[in-house]
Amino acid sequence: MTIPGGDVKGSGKAAAKKAKAPKEKNGKNRHLHAVIMAGGRGTRFWPVSRETFPKQFLRIFGEKTLLQGTIDRLDGELPPDNFTVVTTVNQAELVRWQTRDVIPAQNVITEPMGRNTAPAIALAAFKKRKADKNALLLVLPSDHYVRDTAAFISAIRAAVPFAEAGKLVTFGIVPTRPETGYGYIKAGKARGKGVFRVERFVEKPGIEKAREFVTEGSYLWNSGIFLFSARTVIEEIKKHMPALYKAFAGIEKHLGTAREQKAIEDAYGLIEEDSIDYGVLEKSKRVCVVRSDFGWSDIGSWNALEDVTGADHGGNVVLGNSVNIEPEGSIIFSSGRLLATIGLRGMAVVDTHDATLICPRDRVQEVKKLVEKLKQEGKGEYLLPSVEERPWGHFSLLEKGPGYQIKHICLKPKARLSLQMHNHRSEHWIVVSGMAKVQRGDEIFRVNKNESTYIPVAVKHRLENPGLIPLKIIEIQSGEYLGEDDIIRFDDVYGRETGR
Amino acid sequence: MTIPGGDVKGSGKAAAKKAKAPKEKNGKNRHLHAVIMAGGRGTRFWPVSRETFPKQFLRIFGEKTLLQGTIDRLDGELPPDNFTVVTTVNQAELVRWQTRDVIPAQNVITEPMGRNTAPAIALAAFKKRKADKNALLLVLPSDHYVRDTAAFISAIRAAVPFAEAGKLVTFGIVPTRPETGYGYIKAGKARGKGVFRVERFVEKPGIEKAREFVTEGSYLWNSGIFLFSARTVIEEIKKHMPALYKAFAGIEKHLGTAREQKAIEDAYGLIEEDSIDYGVLEKSKRVCVVRSDFGWSDIGSWNALEDVTGADHGGNVVLGNSVNIEPEGSIIFSSGRLLATIGLRGMAVVDTHDATLICPRDRVQEVKKLVEKLKQEGKGEYLLPSVEERPWGHFSLLEKGPGYQIKHICLKPKARLSLQMHNHRSEHWIVVSGMAKVQRGDEIFRVNKNESTYIPVAVKHRLENPGLIPLKIIEIQSGEYLGEDDIIRFDDVYGRETGR
Repeated sequence: MTIPGGDVKGSGKAAAKKAKAPKEKNGKNRHLHAVIMAGGRGTRFWPVSRETFPKQFLRIFGEKTLLQGTIDRLDGELPPDNFTVVTTVNQAELVRWQTRDVIPAQNVITEPMGRNTAPAIALAAFKKRKADKNALLLVLPSDHYVRDTAAFISAIRAAVPFAEAGKLVTFGIVPTRPETGYGYIKAGKARGKGVFRVERFVEKPGIEKAREFVTEGSYLWNSGIFLFSARTVIEEIKKHMPALYKAFAGIEKHLGTAREQKAIEDAYGLIEEDSIDYGVLEKSKRVCVVRSDFGWSDIGSWNALEDVTGADHGGNVVLGNSVNIEPEGSIIFSSGRLLATIGLRGMAVVDTHDATLICPRDRVQEVKKLVEKLKQEGKGEYLLPSVEERPWGHFSLLEKGPGYQIKHICLKPKARLSLQMHNHRSEHWIVVSGMAKVQRGDEIFRVNKNESTYIPVAVKHRLENPGLIPLKIIEIQSGEYLGEDDIIRFDDVYGRETGR
Repeated sequence: MTIPGGDVKGSGKAAAKKAKAPKEKNGKNRHLHAVIMAGGRGTRFWPVSRETFPKQFLRIFGEKTLLQGTIDRLDGELPPDNFTVVTTVNQAELVRWQTRDVIPAQNVITEPMGRNTAPAIALAAFKKRKADKNALLLVLPSDHYVRDTAAFISAIRAAVPFAEAGKLVTFGIVPTRPETGYGYIKAGKARGKGVFRVERFVEKPGIEKAREFVTEGSYLWNSGIFLFSARTVIEEIKKHMPALYKAFAGIEKHLGTAREQKAIEDAYGLIEEDSIDYGVLEKSKRVCVVRSDFGWSDIGSWNALEDVTGADHGGNVVLGNSVNIEPEGSIIFSSGRLLATIGLRGMAVVDTHDATLICPRDRVQEVKKLVEKLKQEGKGEYLLPSVEERPWGHFSLLEKGPGYQIKHICLKPKARLSLQMHNHRSEHWIVVSGMAKVQRGDEIFRVNKNESTYIPVAVKHRLENPGLIPLKIIEIQSGEYLGEDDIIRFDDVYGRETGR
C-alpha cells in the first residue's frame, strides 16, 4: 500500500461549528482574521518530530496537535472562514488534514518555499486586504503553547483597538525566568491599560543580561504573536521592505484568481528570506506591546516540555513507559518502548520506535547538530517520520530488515486507499482489529480479524475499511526493492504522483 | 509456532575435534577435567541479558558466547570427554545447545536448583572421582573473559603439579586498577615459580583499601578459577563442610546409574547454599595461588565491557548503531536501533529491541535494583529474552500490540518444528529469505521467498526448512490470547511439555 493524499469526509464537527454564530459583540470581529504560520521544520524535537513531520503536527503536548490547539484557542472569537493557515508546499497536505474539521480547505495558503515570516505575512496581508480593506490580522505561530486561554483572549481583545488605530501590536510575555532562548521587548510609556509603546527589541541575551531583564521589570518575552491591520502592515512593509512590497504589489491583481498560485510562485522567485521582526517591527515607529501573561511557551526545545506538563517534585517530566531510579531534573519521554534509568541528573532522554536521543538538558539545542551529523553519516532515514498521518488514518514503520519491512497501518472507518500495483514487492496484510475489504486482481473479498491475505508482485489491489471501527492491519512488504516510489496508481482520486 | 527444545545434528566440527588427539605431553593431562560452572542469573547485563538468558550465553563480547569461549580456550589441552558443565535445570537446554559441537551431551550435569559454587563443585568432584580416582578438576566460571589464552594455559600448567600434590590452587590476577568489585587474595611465601602460599582472602574492599592493595603488590584479584584434585577437594569439604559432604557421600553409589538424577535431587533437598571460597578455601590450610596475568575480567557489569573491547581515545566503548557528539568515558551499546547522544560523560547506554538502559557508569551495579523495580511494577515482560536461541535456530519478538505480536524467526537448514496447533491464535508466515515447507491440516506445500501463508485457529501445522540456506520468516500471531502455553503438540520428538 502506498499512501494517497487528499481528504475524507469531516466528522460533522465542521458543520456544527459553522452553525454556531461567532460572537460579534461589537460588530468588529468580522474583520478579525487569524493568520497561522505553519512553516516550521522539524529538527528541534527530533527524534519525535522529523523533517517532514514538524512540531506543529505533534500530539505529544496534549490531545490536539499544536496546530489544532492554535485554532481551538480562538474558538468563538472569529468565524471559521476567518482562519487562514500559511504553509509550504510540502506541509500543505498535513495542514489541510489536521484542520479539515474546522476551517475551509481554501483557507490554507501555500508558499512555494519557506522564506521566514515577512513574506508569509505580506502574502496573507495582500490577500486579506483585497477581500476586506479593514481586515485585522492576528498572526500566530502554529507551534506555540498557551496555558491560559481566557487571558490570551483578553490580551487579543485589548489589542484590537490599537490595531484598528494603525498600530503594529506585539504581545510581550511577562518573563518567569531569565530565559536566554527568547528575544525580549522593552516596554516604554503606557498607551492604555496594559498596552505600551515599544522602546526597543533585544535579541536573545546572555544569562547575565537575561537576569537583569527579569529584575528590571519592563522587559517582556517576544512571543512572535502580532496583531495589525492588513493596511498598516502593508504600509510599513512598503516603507521598510520595499523589494518585498514590490514583489507582492506586482501580483496583487492575480490574488483570488485562477492565476494566483502561479503569480505567488513568480513573486517568491524575487524575494529574500526575512523575518517580520527584523524587516518591519524593529524599524517601525508604530509598534506597541500588550503586556501579557497567558502561560506562553514557544516550546523551542525538549526543555520546554516542562512549560506544558509541569514537573514532578524532583523536577522531572516523565511521560510514557519508563522505570526510573532517583531521577532529578530530567526529561524522560518514551513513545512506547521501555526506558529504564538510574540516577539521571538534568538529562533529556527521548525514545521513539527507531531512535533514542540522550543528551544533557543544557545541550538540547545541539539536536540540530546531531541532525546534521545523521545526514553526513548516511543515516538520513532517521529524519523521516516514524509515524505518518494521512487523510485515511496513519501508519508507522515497525521494523525494517533485509528484503522486508513491517508497517502498522490504521484506516479510519469508511476510508479507502487507491487501486494500485507494485512491480518489486509483494504485500501481506494481517487484520488485527476491524475488518478489511480487499480487491486483488479481479477478486473482491473480506478479511476478518485474525485473518490475512497476500498480494503478489504486479497484481492490482486496493484496501478499504468498510466498517464502523478503525481497521488495524500489519503489513509486511517483501521484495528486493521497497522504495515508496514503486507504485502505479489506477484511480488516484487525489491527483497525486508521488508514493507518499 | 512454538518452540520445541532438543538438538539438531552437529556441523561436523565435533567429529573433527574428536579426531584430533589431545596433547598429552606428560601422560597426566588425561586426568585433567574442566568443570565449567554455568549457573549464573542474568541481571547484571540487563537489558541484553535476561533472567532466562544470562551473560554466559551472550555473544556481545565476540563471535562466540562466553560459555563457548571458556571451552575454546582449553582447545587441545584436554579431550572433549573431559569437559563438564554444571548448570541448573532451566539452563541445561541452552548449555547443551551452545556446546553441542564440542562436548558430549551427557557431560552437562544438571543441578535441580542453583546452590552457589560449593554444592556444584562437590557434585562434580564426587562424580569425577568415581570415574577416575586421580581426577584433577579445573573449575571455571562460564562467564568470564580471558584475553591472553597462552598465558592462561601456562598458568594452568604451572598449577597442575601443585594440584597433584594435594593443594587447592587458586588463580590470582595481578591487579591493574584499584577495583572494588573483586575479592583479593594476599600471596605469601613462594612455593615455586609464580606459585605462592595464600596468606589470606579479602572480601571486596573499599576504594582506599583497594588502592593500598595495588600499591602493596602481593594482593591479587580472586578470579574464581581453581584447580585441585577431586580427592583433595572432597577431603577438605569433609573437613570444613561436613553437611555437604554427608549429603553427597550418601548418594555416591547412585552417581553414574539410572537413579543418579533422583539421588541428586534428594541431596539438594538437604544442602545449604554456599560458595567454595567461603566454605572451603578461606578455611583450608592447603591453599596456594598462581600469580597470573592473562587479561582476565569477570565482566561483572557493563563497565567491564571496556576490559574486553578496549576504549577509544575518549575513553568510550561504542558498539552498534549510534551517532555521538563529544562522548567521554561512556559506554554506548546498541543492538540495532539508533542511539543519538550529545555530551555524554561517564554514562552507560544500552539499547535492545524492547528496552533501553541509561545510567551513570558509577551506578551500573544498581541494574539489579532496576530489575527488582520492573518486577514490582508489573513489567516482568522485560525480564524475558528479546532474542531466544533454539536448537533449530532463533527468534526474536519484534513488536507486541493489542491482539497481535510479531516475531522474526530464523530456521537453520533442514530444521523442523513440531506438528502443533493453537486454540486461540492464528499465525501468518511471510517468507523473507529461503523457502519453507508447510504442513497445514492435510495439505503440504511450499512457500517461497516473498510469499506468505496463514494458519487459522485450531488447524494442525508444521514449519520446516527443507533448503540449504537459513529460512527467515516474519510470523504474526493474532488472537485474543497469545501466551506461549497455547500449544498442543502432536509429535514432540523432544519430549517437552512447555511452550518454550
